[in-house]
Amino acid sequence: MRFSLGERSGGTKGMERGLFITFEGSEGCGKSTQIDVLGRRLGVAGHEFLVTREPGGTAVGETIRELLQYREEGEGMTAESEVLLFAASRAQLVREVVAPAVAAGKVVIADRFMDSTTVYQGVARRLGGEAVGMINGFAVGDCVPDVTFLLDMDSETAHARATAASGEAGRKDRMESQPLSFYEDVRAGYLELAKAEGGRICVLDATRKVDEIGAEIWGILKERFDGVFG
Amino acid sequence: MRFSLGERSGGTKGMERGLFITFEGSEGCGKSTQIDVLGRRLGVAGHEFLVTREPGGTAVGETIRELLQYREEGEGMTAESEVLLFAASRAQLVREVVAPAVAAGKVVIADRFMDSTTVYQGVARRLGGEAVGMINGFAVGDCVPDVTFLLDMDSETAHARATAASGEAGRKDRMESQPLSFYEDVRAGYLELAKAEGGRICVLDATRKVDEIGAEIWGILKERFDGVFG
Repeated sequence: MRFSLGERSGGTKGMERGLFITFEGSEGCGKSTQIDVLGRRLGVAGHEFLVTREPGGTAVGETIRELLQYREEGEGMTAESEVLLFAASRAQLVREVVAPAVAAGKVVIADRFMDSTTVYQGVARRLGGEAVGMINGFAVGDCVPDVTFLLDMDSETAHARATAASGEAGRKDRMESQPLSFYEDVRAGYLELAKAEGGRICVLDATRKVDEIGAEIWGILKERFDGVFG
Repeated sequence: MRFSLGERSGGTKGMERGLFITFEGSEGCGKSTQIDVLGRRLGVAGHEFLVTREPGGTAVGETIRELLQYREEGEGMTAESEVLLFAASRAQLVREVVAPAVAAGKVVIADRFMDSTTVYQGVARRLGGEAVGMINGFAVGDCVPDVTFLLDMDSETAHARATAASGEAGRKDRMESQPLSFYEDVRAGYLELAKAEGGRICVLDATRKVDEIGAEIWGILKERFDGVFG
């Protein structure tokens, strides 16, 4: 099912255009769960949608994803190289997948997008916000999310959840093995970004029940993109 | 043999520091030949040196080199992704190889470096000079070449040489199969850059004999880095 979003900013009146939704937040905040919930609602409502992951999502991007695993193996990838590789994967994804799908009237849901780079590279790798912002801008071009849901929770809860999840899975990812202070920095980075981009980024209390958060997300979509989500 | 370059700009007085030399020019201009000539002279004079290639030169960079071959195979790599991958390879190379070698007193010779991106991505891929410049700057940081030799020749000669060379090797690379107009655009791009950065980029007439060009390069190095090259 296609729908008209021609009225909103950036659209051309009368053209059928989809929607680009991104989910952000620290590890353990429940992004994947909320993406599943939203996907089910979209399916029931008869909307075509797809979910992307980063890095990856294209032939080029999946190779970059493998390459980024050098990070884990102590090969000493530089912070600059890392951020440029994320950007290269994203540049390919937006032009090969996201923009064409949105132009064809589909809903694209991204599990992390440019805000993750801004926050994680800025916080974890101490790269300047200006440099990261400009590389992000080059990579995404005009393919900026229509709306971004930031699943926010106190750092203690996020840290405990991520640690428990990685324990269950018998693995310990780099991000998931970070100390509490890292989660605090990430949270502060996200909230600062949300303040600067309040029009796009919706901060949601992610400590609530799954259904409650899902209902709020659906309500925001209905309200913002009137007549599309019913 | 190590030598002091502490007097020149960017160096700390009394510190032994090497030299970073890059070669630029269109296909067919004779870069590889002149790098060989310079390498022999450096060896005879007892200088430690190394030659780098791009993309590549590190574990990360060599994987990026393979990835960039998607370009040749019609996988539809975007121009933005391509330039970001070149930059990622370069960011790794300068920090893992070039900067440490120069800091240890060695001479590093690069067969193409950041100017190739500026000219080729700008000309061939029509990306804006400002965006490419900013990505280049992020990738190289303060690891800017001490001197760059631009081997300049009329586009007809360069085109004919590159075409003959690719024919002999039984292959036809993407760059080498470009029309004459492409060589003209590349030459114009390089000359414009040399005008803007006359202090770093030396334009050499590359239609002369190999030994004559080699002698001029050696003379420039002796003159600019007094007491190092004798």
